[in-house]
Amino acid sequence: MKISSVAVVMAMRPEAAPVIASLGLVEADDGPAGLPFRWYEGRHRGIDISVAVNGVDPRHQVDSIGTNPAVLNTWLLIERRRPDVVVSAGTAGGFVSRGGEVGDLYLSSGDLVFHDHRIPIAGYSEYGIGRYPCADVEHLAHRLDAKTGVVSTGNSLDAPQVDLDQMAANDASVKDMEAAAVAWACWLSDTPFFALKTITDLVDGPADTAEEFLLNLSMATGRLSAALVELVAWLAEHGLD
Amino acid sequence: MKISSVAVVMAMRPEAAPVIASLGLVEADDGPAGLPFRWYEGRHRGIDISVAVNGVDPRHQVDSIGTNPAVLNTWLLIERRRPDVVVSAGTAGGFVSRGGEVGDLYLSSGDLVFHDHRIPIAGYSEYGIGRYPCADVEHLAHRLDAKTGVVSTGNSLDAPQVDLDQMAANDASVKDMEAAAVAWACWLSDTPFFALKTITDLVDGPADTAEEFLLNLSMATGRLSAALVELVAWLAEHGLD
Repeated sequence: MKISSVAVVMAMRPEAAPVIASLGLVEADDGPAGLPFRWYEGRHRGIDISVAVNGVDPRHQVDSIGTNPAVLNTWLLIERRRPDVVVSAGTAGGFVSRGGEVGDLYLSSGDLVFHDHRIPIAGYSEYGIGRYPCADVEHLAHRLDAKTGVVSTGNSLDAPQVDLDQMAANDASVKDMEAAAVAWACWLSDTPFFALKTITDLVDGPADTAEEFLLNLSMATGRLSAALVELVAWLAEHGLD
Repeated sequence: MKISSVAVVMAMRPEAAPVIASLGLVEADDGPAGLPFRWYEGRHRGIDISVAVNGVDPRHQVDSIGTNPAVLNTWLLIERRRPDVVVSAGTAGGFVSRGGEVGDLYLSSGDLVFHDHRIPIAGYSEYGIGRYPCADVEHLAHRLDAKTGVVSTGNSLDAPQVDLDQMAANDASVKDMEAAAVAWACWLSDTPFFALKTITDLVDGPADTAEEFLLNLSMATGRLSAALVELVAWLAEHGLD
């Protein structure tokens, strides 16, 4: 499938700033009024690019991470721009037990899943997990020198045993806080989707997650930005399977 | 404040059916296309009423419970209808330790909070909890013979220790799966909000939550429906403080 437009949904300003600069994007004037979301746009390698940042929460003055803003920002962006593909891009946790290392780049493979929606009623268990589809990006992974694996989403930075158990059941290689929510909005609107994540911390490693995340954020966002520029070039050349 | 229009957001069809029948609502023809949400409308006691049901998930064929559909349905409803007040109505868990009993009716008091958004980074902890405001409904509680208490929201039906600890920290009297997400969308759009919940199960009681929920669902939705009809009458007479 030929790709003419790509939308990238990102949660944090420090995640988005390097790629906005690298691609020379400018703030769009059709961003949603009355919401913290910030939309940036530009054109690179013949492809229209939108970067939709969830923005600063006006009540708490921090970046709007997590699934609630991700759902709404993604849906409004799809409604307004009708992109050919949506990418959930950002930093994430990896797993030593899955061969993950800090600095790794991951593309999602398999379905997108949640690990903090436990609903033990017939039919609802699977609804809670989600399993929203991911585009086939194996060739892109080769080009980006990225690993591939299941991305599992939850609204907490930490990982108590109950979440670890569900991530294991989900075969998760990557733990993030938005991807499956973005995938849900994409699936409802028949928009192809995948996730691109760089690893700032190791869920099953010895370090404190918050400290490790903050320590590695700048390095990881640099790698993420370079990968997104390469990703656009690849989509311009090859489209999406 | 005089109230001319009320929007009620509900997650499950069995929760919504009795109130749709009691108020004689009909399906609206301006419901959002391509989404599972179902909007119903009508007029009662001089007030325009919308009931927005999150509807059937097309991937899993169960009701779209939880925060993701709640956020999107609420936002689209507010965008289209600009209601004077939004009510998150549905069934919920109560707490024996707070004097809760199955069949109780609760109105929200204090801020609306999440109990499954743990983000232990300065500034983000409070963002995760949320604390979105609730309209003053003490007088309405007297009219409805309802209890009042903090409603705490999470995406799981169960309550492992990590969630119980956060609910205790939140002073929760009611555990539900949508209210704080609806409150977030209302707060962003400056729309007055409160929650009305009936108790189907006791979080700290001895029974299995899923069994207790299913056993008491019909009784609780009947009480919820009667309370919503009375609530509309009260808003017609008194408005909102």
